Amino acid sequence: MQVSIDRIRKDIETICSFNATPGKGYTRFSYSAEDLKAREYLLSQFRDLGMECRTDPAGNLRARLEGSSPHAPAVMSGSHIDTVLHGGMFDGLVGTVGALEVARVLREEGIRPVHPYEVVVFAEEEGSNFGTTTAGSKAMVGRYGVEDLKKLKNPEGTSMYEAAKSIGLDPDKLPESILKPGDLKAMVELHIEQSVVLDTEELQIGIVEAIAGIRAYSLSLEGVPNHAGATPMTLRQDPLAGAAEIILEAERAARECATGSAVGTIGRIFCEPNVSNVIPGKVRFTLDARDVKTQGMDEVVEKVRSRMEEVAAKRKLSAEMKLVGESRAIEIGREMTELIESAAMKLGARYRRMNSGAVHDACLIADVAPIGMIFVPSINGRSHVPEENTRWSDIEMGANVLLEALLKLLF
Amino acid sequence: MQVSIDRIRKDIETICSFNATPGKGYTRFSYSAEDLKAREYLLSQFRDLGMECRTDPAGNLRARLEGSSPHAPAVMSGSHIDTVLHGGMFDGLVGTVGALEVARVLREEGIRPVHPYEVVVFAEEEGSNFGTTTAGSKAMVGRYGVEDLKKLKNPEGTSMYEAAKSIGLDPDKLPESILKPGDLKAMVELHIEQSVVLDTEELQIGIVEAIAGIRAYSLSLEGVPNHAGATPMTLRQDPLAGAAEIILEAERAARECATGSAVGTIGRIFCEPNVSNVIPGKVRFTLDARDVKTQGMDEVVEKVRSRMEEVAAKRKLSAEMKLVGESRAIEIGREMTELIESAAMKLGARYRRMNSGAVHDACLIADVAPIGMIFVPSINGRSHVPEENTRWSDIEMGANVLLEALLKLLF
Repeated sequence: MQVSIDRIRKDIETICSFNATPGKGYTRFSYSAEDLKAREYLLSQFRDLGMECRTDPAGNLRARLEGSSPHAPAVMSGSHIDTVLHGGMFDGLVGTVGALEVARVLREEGIRPVHPYEVVVFAEEEGSNFGTTTAGSKAMVGRYGVEDLKKLKNPEGTSMYEAAKSIGLDPDKLPESILKPGDLKAMVELHIEQSVVLDTEELQIGIVEAIAGIRAYSLSLEGVPNHAGATPMTLRQDPLAGAAEIILEAERAARECATGSAVGTIGRIFCEPNVSNVIPGKVRFTLDARDVKTQGMDEVVEKVRSRMEEVAAKRKLSAEMKLVGESRAIEIGREMTELIESAAMKLGARYRRMNSGAVHDACLIADVAPIGMIFVPSINGRSHVPEENTRWSDIEMGANVLLEALLKLLF
Repeated sequence: MQVSIDRIRKDIETICSFNATPGKGYTRFSYSAEDLKAREYLLSQFRDLGMECRTDPAGNLRARLEGSSPHAPAVMSGSHIDTVLHGGMFDGLVGTVGALEVARVLREEGIRPVHPYEVVVFAEEEGSNFGTTTAGSKAMVGRYGVEDLKKLKNPEGTSMYEAAKSIGLDPDKLPESILKPGDLKAMVELHIEQSVVLDTEELQIGIVEAIAGIRAYSLSLEGVPNHAGATPMTLRQDPLAGAAEIILEAERAARECATGSAVGTIGRIFCEPNVSNVIPGKVRFTLDARDVKTQGMDEVVEKVRSRMEEVAAKRKLSAEMKLVGESRAIEIGREMTELIESAAMKLGARYRRMNSGAVHDACLIADVAPIGMIFVPSINGRSHVPEENTRWSDIEMGANVLLEALLKLLF
C-alpha cells in the first residue's frame, strides 16, 4: 500500500497554477482569489472521495472520512495552502496534499478505519495577509477569538473577520467550532524542513521530537552622532560598534549553549542617521532566540542582556531590550515519535530525529491533542523563496511515512 | 585693537534669519532665495567698507580691500554660508563673518596693509544642493571645470552650471577666474571644530597642524538567508555576524594605529532582507578611514581588508571592498601654525595644536598657497544639527586670533 507521487505532483502543480505572481515565485494569500480556486480544487478532490467537508468560521477547511466507530475521536492530518509573497511550491502544500493522498489510498484500498480521518487545510499560516502567523490554527483551538479576528488587518485595512465574511463564512460563530481536548486522537503534519539539516546530511525524513520556543526582542542603543573625521576614537560613543559586540555575543551564546540546540539571530538592523561620514547616533536591532529547552533560550537572552549592559556602560550608550514576542517550546510525546520512527524504519527511509526551529500549525493543535511532525528535506535549505525545492522522491517517502503512521493511529 | 562680538553676533543672527526651515534648524542651500539674501547682506557690509566685490563664475563671492602694494599677493580669509538641511547657526558663518569683522577693524583703525586683504565666501561647501562638498572652492582652484559644474545636479535635476546662470553668473568664464599659485600670500580660515576635542578639554582655540586624508570604501558581504529558527548555528553563513567582526576590527585598527591620529568609522549599514526571523543574506556597509598620516589610513584599510578576507573564508561569505572616494592628507606649514600660535599666546587664549578630521574650503586653497586654520569649540561636539552651538566668547577669541594672525600676514 503506497501513495501515488504522480497524483501528489498533479495536486501541487494544480494548486500552484493559482498564483498571484506568475514568474515571480508563488503567491497565494489566504482568502484571495487564488486561495479560493485552490480550495475549490481541494473540495472537489475531497468530495470525489465521499468526504464530508466544512469550512470553519475562520476559514480552516476540514474534510472528514467517517470511521467505523463514529463517536471515536478523529485522527487529523494536514497543513496550509497560503504562501508568503513570492514564495515557493512546497511550504504547506506538501503536508496538505500528503494528507489528501492518504485519504485517496484509504478509499482506493477499501480501508474503513475505526477512527474518523480528517484532512485539515489551515488558513493564514504564513501571516502574509493579516500579519500574524498560524492565525487559522490559533482560531481553531480558541487562542484567537472573534475580537482578535476583527483586530487582525491586512495592509488594505480589511480585517480577517471581514475577509472571512466576504467569502461567505460566519466568523461570529467561531466559538462553536473550537477544537477541545478529546476531539482528536492525534494530529500528524508533514512539512518541508525549511532549513539545511536533512539536505546537508543527505537524509529523507526528519522526525520532530521538539519544537523550539521563541523569545523575540527589540534592542536599541543610543550614543552620540558625530563627525566621522573630527571625532577621535577615544571620544566616541558609537552605538553601531556596540551593536557589533552584542551581535557576536548572541552568536557565541547560542553556539556555546549547553543544550546544543539553541539558536540566536539578529535579522534586522537599522542605523541612524546612516550616513557614511557620521558616527551613528542610534542603532535598533532584533534578537530572535530559540531553543527546544527553555533553559537554552534563557541562557542566550541573559548573555545578550548582560553583554548589552556591559557595552552600554563601557561605551556610554543608553540601551534598551524589550520582549516583543514569545512562544513556549513543545516536546512531542514519545508515543508519536516512536510511531513515526517505526513507520520510517519499515519503509527503509534514511531518517533522523530532530528539532523544529520553526513553528507550524501542529504546534497549536498540541494544545488539544498529541501531535507528530514529519519533515522532508529542503534542497540547500531554501524556503519562502521561488527556489524552494524538495525532491519528488523525498515527498513520496514523506507521504508514505505519513500514511504508515496514520494507519496505526486510525485503528 | 579688537573685534566686536556684538557686530559679529548681529551678522550671524541676520544671516540666520534667511532660513528655509524656520523652527527646524537652519537651512540655506547655495543659490537658494535664502542664500541670495545672505549674499545681499554681506555685499552691503563689504561695500560699506569700500571693498571691491565680485562673484566668480561658480558663485564664490570675493571682497577686496586694496593694500599699499597693489601687485603684492593678497591675504585671504573666509569660509562658507551654505548649510546642511536643518543645520546649525555656526558652521561656515563664524569664519565668514570673522573675516568680514577683520576688514571692519582694519577700516575702523585706519590701517592700510601692504598686501591686499580678500574676504571670500565660498559657494556649496556642504554639498547639500549639488551633492559634492567644497564644490565652490574646488572650482576656485581649477579642480572642477565647466563640464563638472554641468554634471553636478541637485535632486530637482538642475545643474550647478544652470543654477549659477539663473542667478546671473557666467559659469563658462570659470577658466578665467581660477586661482593660481602666486595669487595669494596665504589663506586663513576660522571654523567651528565640529567635534568634542576642544569642548572636552575646555579650550578656546584649536590650531590646525594637519588635515586628515580620507579613504572611503563600500563593503558588502553575502551569505545565505535562511530560517532563523530552523538553521542550526553550525550551518549558518550569516553576513551580519561577519560584518560585526569587521566593524570591531575597524575600531580596533584605528584605536591601535601607531600614528595616534587615525579614525575609522562605519556610519552606514544596510541588511537584506532585514527581517527579524530570517538570517541575513546580504549586508552592505561603509568604511570611512582618515588620518593626517597616509601610513595610518593604509594601516586601518589593510587591517579591515585582511579581517574581511579572513571572515569571508571562515564564514563562507562572498566579500567585496570597493574604494569610493579619497582625498590626500594636508600638512600645514610650520610658519602658519607658529604665526597662529603666537597670536593665540599673545591673546592669552587656552589653545592646543590639533588635527582636523574634517575637510574645509581652506584645504582646496592649499593647492595654491600656504593655509592656516583656527578652530573654536563646538559645545558637546555637535554640528550639522539645530543644536550646533559655540559660546560667543569663544567666537570672539577666535576672531581676535584671526585678526592678530592676519595683521602679521598683511604687512
